[in-house]
Amino acid sequence: MKIGVLCIGDELLKGAVINTNLAYIGQRLLEIGVMPELCLEVPDEPHEVVSALEYAMKHADFIITSGGLGPTADDLTKQAIADHLNLPLELNPEAEKAVRARWDSLKRGPLPLNFLNQAYIPRGAEALLNSFGSAPGIHITAGTKRIVMLPGPPSELHPMFDRQLLPILRSLLDGRIYTRLFHISGVPESRVEERTIPIIQANPGLSVAYCAAPEFVKLFLKTSDPDCLARAESMVRSEFAAELLHDSSHTVAEEIILLLKERSCALALAESCTGGLIAKLLTDVPGASEVFPGGVVSYANQAKRELLGVSAETLEKFGAVSAECAAEMLRGAAERFHTDCAIAVTGIAGPDGGTPEKPVGLVYIGVRCFDQILVREHRFRGSRSQVRERTAAVALNTLRRMLLGEKLS
Amino acid sequence: MKIGVLCIGDELLKGAVINTNLAYIGQRLLEIGVMPELCLEVPDEPHEVVSALEYAMKHADFIITSGGLGPTADDLTKQAIADHLNLPLELNPEAEKAVRARWDSLKRGPLPLNFLNQAYIPRGAEALLNSFGSAPGIHITAGTKRIVMLPGPPSELHPMFDRQLLPILRSLLDGRIYTRLFHISGVPESRVEERTIPIIQANPGLSVAYCAAPEFVKLFLKTSDPDCLARAESMVRSEFAAELLHDSSHTVAEEIILLLKERSCALALAESCTGGLIAKLLTDVPGASEVFPGGVVSYANQAKRELLGVSAETLEKFGAVSAECAAEMLRGAAERFHTDCAIAVTGIAGPDGGTPEKPVGLVYIGVRCFDQILVREHRFRGSRSQVRERTAAVALNTLRRMLLGEKLS
Repeated sequence: MKIGVLCIGDELLKGAVINTNLAYIGQRLLEIGVMPELCLEVPDEPHEVVSALEYAMKHADFIITSGGLGPTADDLTKQAIADHLNLPLELNPEAEKAVRARWDSLKRGPLPLNFLNQAYIPRGAEALLNSFGSAPGIHITAGTKRIVMLPGPPSELHPMFDRQLLPILRSLLDGRIYTRLFHISGVPESRVEERTIPIIQANPGLSVAYCAAPEFVKLFLKTSDPDCLARAESMVRSEFAAELLHDSSHTVAEEIILLLKERSCALALAESCTGGLIAKLLTDVPGASEVFPGGVVSYANQAKRELLGVSAETLEKFGAVSAECAAEMLRGAAERFHTDCAIAVTGIAGPDGGTPEKPVGLVYIGVRCFDQILVREHRFRGSRSQVRERTAAVALNTLRRMLLGEKLS
Repeated sequence: MKIGVLCIGDELLKGAVINTNLAYIGQRLLEIGVMPELCLEVPDEPHEVVSALEYAMKHADFIITSGGLGPTADDLTKQAIADHLNLPLELNPEAEKAVRARWDSLKRGPLPLNFLNQAYIPRGAEALLNSFGSAPGIHITAGTKRIVMLPGPPSELHPMFDRQLLPILRSLLDGRIYTRLFHISGVPESRVEERTIPIIQANPGLSVAYCAAPEFVKLFLKTSDPDCLARAESMVRSEFAAELLHDSSHTVAEEIILLLKERSCALALAESCTGGLIAKLLTDVPGASEVFPGGVVSYANQAKRELLGVSAETLEKFGAVSAECAAEMLRGAAERFHTDCAIAVTGIAGPDGGTPEKPVGLVYIGVRCFDQILVREHRFRGSRSQVRERTAAVALNTLRRMLLGEKLS
């Protein structure tokens, strides 16, 4: 099955909105072993939508569209595609009920006509009801081709993709493909590839794909033989053991929260150069409050002294960017927040502030997990945001390994 | 001039990388008054690249590509496009010098042949030298069409776009178009539109575009008459006065850092439900350390008490999510970090933790600017990340207005 993606909306081309839908769709499709053939972003213009649809249908037999299904004048996707396929729009009773209920819940007076437009569906198509917004999705079968239109807002597209579109795709793939996704943390992509070779050799018919993200490498297995998948999966679990995230974790921060809950312990932070980024990543995870009492963002030396108890002597003698300062920040964080685990980072994220002895990218990362304490010097390359992201990724992964019982030094 | 964008790389379709290049290109093009006609993402496959190029060239006469110019086996963009245009690749002496110098700077031994491949340029094309990476960009004129290929990494694409591609585009538009971009903060898009109507009516030939982002509305002016632009610009500056960000600011956080520097004062944070997000946004800005000593992420009540001095009585009587708690967090932050300005937020970001009296989305935001203190209740809709983002946007914008001398109540 070849899949094409079509994302509709001026805002994507104006750069007002970053197209995260494509990345979401791409990630979810890879989990069932498919990479989209192509994606097009087009403006809210019916003839551009149709032209892009025709192009996509030459390259793919299953088209997923996002955007342009709402009630306003620039929502033209449904009409354009229905016209192109010569399908009249008809009021769908189930969709009408849902759209009316949605309007009532907004408590804004009588239902305007354009809002009800959302309940009109091309003849013969299936309405995919939307629990998080008003516009239903639409599933059209046109000969050997399929088109599924989804609303553009990620808060609506994500659940509809998972709950309504994925089952359709799985049913089309059923009995033909079995897949498995792993997140491998703290191993470079080239090493993941090397270490996977024996698994590939032992399992003819197994196809493997890699995908490097900042904080881990994704490893995909795909095969038409369920027994082969089971064997390969068990080999991956044994080869990468402690480097695999839990199946339910999609970020290292999620994994940390999970591990802290399992071990009934809590984490405190003392952040200098990451300036709140690590706290932000942890608190992106719902339920983080159970194991994350908080942290101090100590940009200024005074804050390092007064809020974390770093000694004036250490700051004077070694400077704020030093292993000694990181170690005292680490102790301060654990003490102030009464935790068994702590992370402290201090460094120079740039672009300014570097010196020959302490260049931009020099970062000290301290991690404490019960009585194990590690402070390491790192030299990261890249822009300010890259230095900050890499610091956060290394700090979280170090704690993850310690929580799993590894003895690091 | 019609512009098409072509982004090449499996990683975009796999969802390993979010295509931020399109958003960057879109934003920069709008500043010169152009919206791309379309964008295509295609895999690292020569025939897919060529097919997409042909499609894009039907819709546009200036094609910008990103990605696939590096030294590895999957970097196929240049060869595919050169083959398609029947242009042989030739060693470009200037590019060779730059590529060799780049390799030497990496200190990795003798130059490998595939690395030097980057210095080969299609016959008759111009090499655009790359100061932040190894692969030069390429500028091809093919009849009435132009193709500019840029490397995919944003740290290379951004400066090359600004310094090398924009001047080419401006020269093609020269004398035909004058544009201006404003960032308007704290005003909904529909109000910006209404208040711009008299400016449009007073300036025939002026074209206006809006673009709503989470923290501001972008307003673009475009005209072929430089005097018309000057008149319209002055009307916008007078109409939106305090709501306009500085011309050099691209985020509200940048504006805050600028204003704090101008007023020689500093800002401290006390974050509960935003969990470090506001600190992260401020420290994304280079030079934030001059005016941002730090903040406390106080997720737990104990941290609110011990690190910020919130009284046990307040927590007991009103709860952590209350105006009273926000006010005490605000005072605590300013005191602990010795600052004149402070922001404190406490609320329920969800998805869990809501009650009928204190539902998900209830947030108290306290802002202090010298002796002016404001604590407000908000009820935000949306997901956990939306509640967090909206809280941060409102908090920063409130401080911005106070720093500009507005008396809020």
